[in-house]
Amino acid sequence: MTTLGPTRLLGEFLAASRWDDIPGPVRHEGARCLVNFVGCALGGCHDEAIEIAFRVLSPCFGPPQAGVIGRRERPDMLNAAFLNGASANVLEYDDTHLGSVMHPGAPIAPGLFALAERRPVDGAQLLHAVILGVEIGCRIGIAMMPTHYRRGAHITATCGIFGAAAGAGKLLGLDAPGMARALGHAATQSAGLVENLGSMSKSIGVGNAARNGLAAALFAEEGFTAPEQAIEGRYGFAAVATDAPDFAAMTDRLGDRWEMLQNAYKPYPCGVVLFPVIDGVLELRERYPDAAARIDEVVVRGHQLLLERTDRPQITSGRDAKVSLQHAVAAAFVHGAAGIAQFSDASVAEPAIGALSAKVKPEADAGIPVETAIVRLRLSDGTESAAHVRNARGTMNRPMTDDELDAKFRDLAAYGAPALDAEALLSAIRGLEHEADAGRVVRLTAPT
Amino acid sequence: MTTLGPTRLLGEFLAASRWDDIPGPVRHEGARCLVNFVGCALGGCHDEAIEIAFRVLSPCFGPPQAGVIGRRERPDMLNAAFLNGASANVLEYDDTHLGSVMHPGAPIAPGLFALAERRPVDGAQLLHAVILGVEIGCRIGIAMMPTHYRRGAHITATCGIFGAAAGAGKLLGLDAPGMARALGHAATQSAGLVENLGSMSKSIGVGNAARNGLAAALFAEEGFTAPEQAIEGRYGFAAVATDAPDFAAMTDRLGDRWEMLQNAYKPYPCGVVLFPVIDGVLELRERYPDAAARIDEVVVRGHQLLLERTDRPQITSGRDAKVSLQHAVAAAFVHGAAGIAQFSDASVAEPAIGALSAKVKPEADAGIPVETAIVRLRLSDGTESAAHVRNARGTMNRPMTDDELDAKFRDLAAYGAPALDAEALLSAIRGLEHEADAGRVVRLTAPT
Repeated sequence: MTTLGPTRLLGEFLAASRWDDIPGPVRHEGARCLVNFVGCALGGCHDEAIEIAFRVLSPCFGPPQAGVIGRRERPDMLNAAFLNGASANVLEYDDTHLGSVMHPGAPIAPGLFALAERRPVDGAQLLHAVILGVEIGCRIGIAMMPTHYRRGAHITATCGIFGAAAGAGKLLGLDAPGMARALGHAATQSAGLVENLGSMSKSIGVGNAARNGLAAALFAEEGFTAPEQAIEGRYGFAAVATDAPDFAAMTDRLGDRWEMLQNAYKPYPCGVVLFPVIDGVLELRERYPDAAARIDEVVVRGHQLLLERTDRPQITSGRDAKVSLQHAVAAAFVHGAAGIAQFSDASVAEPAIGALSAKVKPEADAGIPVETAIVRLRLSDGTESAAHVRNARGTMNRPMTDDELDAKFRDLAAYGAPALDAEALLSAIRGLEHEADAGRVVRLTAPT
Repeated sequence: MTTLGPTRLLGEFLAASRWDDIPGPVRHEGARCLVNFVGCALGGCHDEAIEIAFRVLSPCFGPPQAGVIGRRERPDMLNAAFLNGASANVLEYDDTHLGSVMHPGAPIAPGLFALAERRPVDGAQLLHAVILGVEIGCRIGIAMMPTHYRRGAHITATCGIFGAAAGAGKLLGLDAPGMARALGHAATQSAGLVENLGSMSKSIGVGNAARNGLAAALFAEEGFTAPEQAIEGRYGFAAVATDAPDFAAMTDRLGDRWEMLQNAYKPYPCGVVLFPVIDGVLELRERYPDAAARIDEVVVRGHQLLLERTDRPQITSGRDAKVSLQHAVAAAFVHGAAGIAQFSDASVAEPAIGALSAKVKPEADAGIPVETAIVRLRLSDGTESAAHVRNARGTMNRPMTDDELDAKFRDLAAYGAPALDAEALLSAIRGLEHEADAGRVVRLTAPT
């Protein structure tokens, strides 16, 4: 009896997987992942970094093969994958796989959207490929942690590329050796640094993961040879990526445990430590919807980390707003929302938000866990009210509901692609599983 | 006084460097590097791996912007860079930088050739960019060794990309912060595994280094932002690439010590341990030019490593021939040469070579260093003759002469691109420094 290594085991699993094997809750979460992915890409598609990427890459665009979500341009499918990957991640409003802290949607979905425009598949096939891509990318990510991320590898890019290759390989109908080749070609292209987060350069890593993962599958399809043990070999991916690979976590209970079920969605486009704070502010806003001008003080008690990361009373840009406790509290109360508009340059310049920001007082409390916050309000008439948030929205204990996710999608679409029919697109993604032509759904991502 | 980190120091050096700063011997070696690069690309341009890469990528080709050396196709410049990088490395006949064991030509030169067709530069500018690219790629390589390669990073790809970005940045005229951005965008794209050597997948890593290094410079030119300390930062390239970066080696004596002078060229397209053996065989062949059919025995005495790597009496393919002592000895003696033709499938099938192979007897000798070999011949009339090679051709102690390098170029051109005017191209590269239009030289790499 021959024991197959992880590279080949993953290849066998990918080739053998059938749509009927995918449990209902996993299918549902796959559609939610795509709602979030497309929403983020719509929101990001005119970001400054994406506009520059267009200027750089458009002279090299090939034939118009695939759409860029939210835009009219149609590059070749490799460039489309790059741009959609970059665009879906640029606002930092991603999905997050909790076991690997990886954002799987942005690197994995774009190549599948591009392929779906080139080769007819039905909606279930596209959804199946997304689910398998997330499965492989996240499992490889888990197996490389914690050394991989701690050194500085940006796991969304470095492991997302495996998911992109796996998903594209599934749409191309690769057999098990073909899948192993696709993973091998992904392994040798795995790249991306945590150091580059916080600059536009982050988008190159994520865009490349999407582009090069698709290319890996296309090379595999044509019989381009690859090593047998690209992941586990002596000089393979794991040897380079980590001190202690956990191959058992990579291949354990394949087809039984589903990583898609560990995927969460950011409820607010800002630092994750601010989530319980904003939940509390929005709760108080419901109690006192017109009170913004009558607030004397907002005291926020939270974990020490909350203060370290976000105690920033003076800010000047939307980028800084994403990590400012004072701004987040004020903007959420004044607008009764905490979406893209509340973390823009314009909202930073709003007098009412600035005035309320100055009344926000953060306090560290050693007894409060990091996922928790207490927000206490005092109005000028002496009224006091407090909200104690134990589980922030968007965590596993309080996942985003379908309605909340749909609202996030609408917010992002209105921000980045107001000319698009967002409702038609949203219901098409929600109904993807029953769609005969996945390409039709993908084409709805372009403004008419 | 602010101390600049390595990323910015390299950027300052690149921006400040002037052609007049480059010593004559470095310029001459730069031209030799290009002779070898173009020759290897001509030889490899119709290799099976390259043909498949064309099938995969050509549906995505953009406008005809840049040539693929030795071929008529003209893809966009990014795809051209990928294909030329892959092609120049596919035969394993590269240049080798001795301090880093990196092959700098294949990843670094292709982007510069592509740019030279898009934006007019003179020959000295192109040569200057090549020299600076090799300088940066090799210095970063040295600084990452030995952990980097030992783990499994394929340094030609992982560090070659920095050279590609640096050289392209120079042709684009980037200032120091722009150069640092280009290095930052290269850092986050650095990828390539030793595990993938020996399969076609190797070519993806090298091709990407060429392509993505060029893209890094183009993104930097448009102001795409990057981290300040992409190489030395806490989560930067060095943290991911090695346990113990040697930043002093990276920046020491910039502009004074030149890595280009440590670049060597393979004299034969086979395993490096075979070089002294082939030198000895060719020496004996000169003494007895017609003796092949009258040989009773050839005894080769060498280092234990020679036997471990190359004692392969029975082979069936040109690929295996590259690591077969018996084949190398027989083919070199029968043909009086050891070029591409002598390591082909056809030469393996040649009866005279097969017959002589069977008479080759390898012997390990603990007293013989690895760069040395003794080849002893006995003819059927009892004549005996020996050649003792102390320094193999293509090492630093016996570098390839200009004439030898030109002969290698002609051999490769005749093999891979017989329709090309190889002499015109060779003299244009040799005279590149005095050429007013570098694009003219690059266009000579296409068959007429």
